[in-house]
Amino acid sequence: MKTNPVKGMKDFLPEETRLRDYVRGVILDTYRSSGFERVSTPILEDMENLNKSEGGDNLNLIFKVLKRGEKLDEALESKDPDALCDMGLRYDLTLPLARFYAANREALPRVFKVIQTDRVYRAERPQKGRLREFVQCDIDILGDDSPQAEMELIDVTARALISLGFKGFTVNVNDRRILRGMLEGMGFVPASIESVCVSFDKLDKIGISGVCAELAEKGCPAEAVDCLKGWLEKGDLSLEAVGQYYSDAEVTSRVEGIVSTANALSEGNYTAVFDASLTRGQGYYTGCVFEIRLEGYPGAIAGGGRYDRMIGKFTGTDTPAVGFSIGFERICQILSEQGFSVPGEQRLALLYKDDAPFADVLIRAGELRRDYSVTLLKQKKLSKQLSQLESQGFSFAAFYDTGDIKPLGADKHNG
Amino acid sequence: MKTNPVKGMKDFLPEETRLRDYVRGVILDTYRSSGFERVSTPILEDMENLNKSEGGDNLNLIFKVLKRGEKLDEALESKDPDALCDMGLRYDLTLPLARFYAANREALPRVFKVIQTDRVYRAERPQKGRLREFVQCDIDILGDDSPQAEMELIDVTARALISLGFKGFTVNVNDRRILRGMLEGMGFVPASIESVCVSFDKLDKIGISGVCAELAEKGCPAEAVDCLKGWLEKGDLSLEAVGQYYSDAEVTSRVEGIVSTANALSEGNYTAVFDASLTRGQGYYTGCVFEIRLEGYPGAIAGGGRYDRMIGKFTGTDTPAVGFSIGFERICQILSEQGFSVPGEQRLALLYKDDAPFADVLIRAGELRRDYSVTLLKQKKLSKQLSQLESQGFSFAAFYDTGDIKPLGADKHNG
Repeated sequence: MKTNPVKGMKDFLPEETRLRDYVRGVILDTYRSSGFERVSTPILEDMENLNKSEGGDNLNLIFKVLKRGEKLDEALESKDPDALCDMGLRYDLTLPLARFYAANREALPRVFKVIQTDRVYRAERPQKGRLREFVQCDIDILGDDSPQAEMELIDVTARALISLGFKGFTVNVNDRRILRGMLEGMGFVPASIESVCVSFDKLDKIGISGVCAELAEKGCPAEAVDCLKGWLEKGDLSLEAVGQYYSDAEVTSRVEGIVSTANALSEGNYTAVFDASLTRGQGYYTGCVFEIRLEGYPGAIAGGGRYDRMIGKFTGTDTPAVGFSIGFERICQILSEQGFSVPGEQRLALLYKDDAPFADVLIRAGELRRDYSVTLLKQKKLSKQLSQLESQGFSFAAFYDTGDIKPLGADKHNG
Repeated sequence: MKTNPVKGMKDFLPEETRLRDYVRGVILDTYRSSGFERVSTPILEDMENLNKSEGGDNLNLIFKVLKRGEKLDEALESKDPDALCDMGLRYDLTLPLARFYAANREALPRVFKVIQTDRVYRAERPQKGRLREFVQCDIDILGDDSPQAEMELIDVTARALISLGFKGFTVNVNDRRILRGMLEGMGFVPASIESVCVSFDKLDKIGISGVCAELAEKGCPAEAVDCLKGWLEKGDLSLEAVGQYYSDAEVTSRVEGIVSTANALSEGNYTAVFDASLTRGQGYYTGCVFEIRLEGYPGAIAGGGRYDRMIGKFTGTDTPAVGFSIGFERICQILSEQGFSVPGEQRLALLYKDDAPFADVLIRAGELRRDYSVTLLKQKKLSKQLSQLESQGFSFAAFYDTGDIKPLGADKHNG
């Protein structure tokens, strides 16, 4: 039998899991103390819903689940591969949330501030070094179309990162309407903008020339591609530099308000900036989009935006919605690289001999558990066992037969 | 688009999720303070591993994931439905743990005490009222063949349940070797015992006559079926009553020790008994099996046993292993039916007017967050909003413009 996890997915050892549980706990505490409430949805979603979800490139990365029983027999006869599957593993937490809200809105507050921390799945090529199963930590505000919703999401997300020790990060902000207006102003065809954005979103990975080559390949007007190229090469991504192509005052002042509020709250921990090149891949965003970047680490550590038209697809009536998602795997990876150590409790090993009355050993363990996290272990050759315990991170060894408690590693601390 | 979750799976609302998170937290705290460490494995496992895993009936309930790309094209041409899938959703946490241990054993302590709390999947018929996606909370001890391992798992699991307020439950204990010996003693053919156990395990659901009919249908010797029937009808499932069919002293005294240790630790909270009819469905159990039942609720709320030969299938060398799994969904359902209320923090709603400077509102929220969980909300028509907040479980409303903090529902408490 195969011992490795399936391709592109990962086993997490106790030490890694301890870090992950700690990080998740800090993020959840921040979210909860800010009045957000967690919900949970199944990992599987209806395949039709997924296909209609405007998830951009992610739609090509869905793991699909085979039908069962008679439905499978029928599908096998039809010889249509698309008919084989009726469900898929979710690629993000936003589509499931929109479905959840549509199904349960009668039972939810009018402005719903919601947490999701859960696994999502994308069949990325493993050579990219990306995991195919990963955790996202999302907060969303549903039912509020004011810019205060964006401001609050940025504040809460930034505080979660600060609580984990992150500093000096950048919050990049843009608005899909500005992006679209700018691209149309440069001469891209309105109907092609979604596709142009998908290419533009790769700026980080394939550079200016890569993006422009891809746009040319997609048949975009040469003048528009040249105009974008020239503008990008200037390197000024400010709101002023966008002005020649787009200048709707209501939209631009909204973005300015979001950026300035974030800066007013940062206490020097981060900087918020307008970034005209910021796209975010998903096709479902309708307004403000934002992400957080950390100097020295490629890619974003958090990303989100406003998607005011997704819930309406389920309910028939649009409901304003905006979300911010922390890239949990990225955060854990960075903390691990930085040698972050989880604040831990005092771990004690209670050693007992083979012939000890085990009910009494367990009772003694219960007493010690008032002060320590207690691991029961059979007593072995003592000097070797004590040094093993120390290297495994135990602070104390207790002996059932004598009642003694011995601190471990004390010599080192004194030396 | 469809708003319901996929068939047999469930959305969890904020109140349900609050209960689930609380229950999971209490269980995890108990496990961790007893020296167990959490690990995490992917939800997908290799299809071949799953097929070879001796999971009994569960093997018929696996959700399978379609191959992708060229491998799918090849499989479609072969017209073999089994070739379409290379991965499946795990049906329990035991097979993934055995694979995990085999892959990582060099990095793990020799006796490994491990926690898993995670989602598993079984394509049960929805009319059974069972969920197809559900959470299990498992502890396992790997590398210890002594009965102390069973004793410790029972102690820890019972303490987790007691911490959640459960009392008066029963811990049923048996040993597969006793069960097998007894059935062979009654005249069942050794090679058929696994299949006999699968039927015997349904005793709860289909009764004595149902089990015996199923065994007859499977072609078991009529005398053996009659013998089992007569023995079951007597209703004595004690170790003494088994004595006429099976009496290996080493095995029976081992079980007796486990039962008596559990009783010595129960402090009146539970009773441990030997139960000769206890099977547990999985084919992989090799020795002691146990489960916990709560009077008035059908089925088990926790179950487990020893599976000393599963890890060897991965490594070539057998490693003793024993696990105990809490049926998380069952526990949450029972607590919810009992009207259990999660001990909560003080929730405060900070109300602000549309024209308030929002950065300052967020700063005020941060100050209040030292003492409360703070939810920001726009101020509406006040009397209606305050009664809504009260019904949503808020204890306080604070007003940004005046700085006042008003307790909610105080009148009721005084009246």
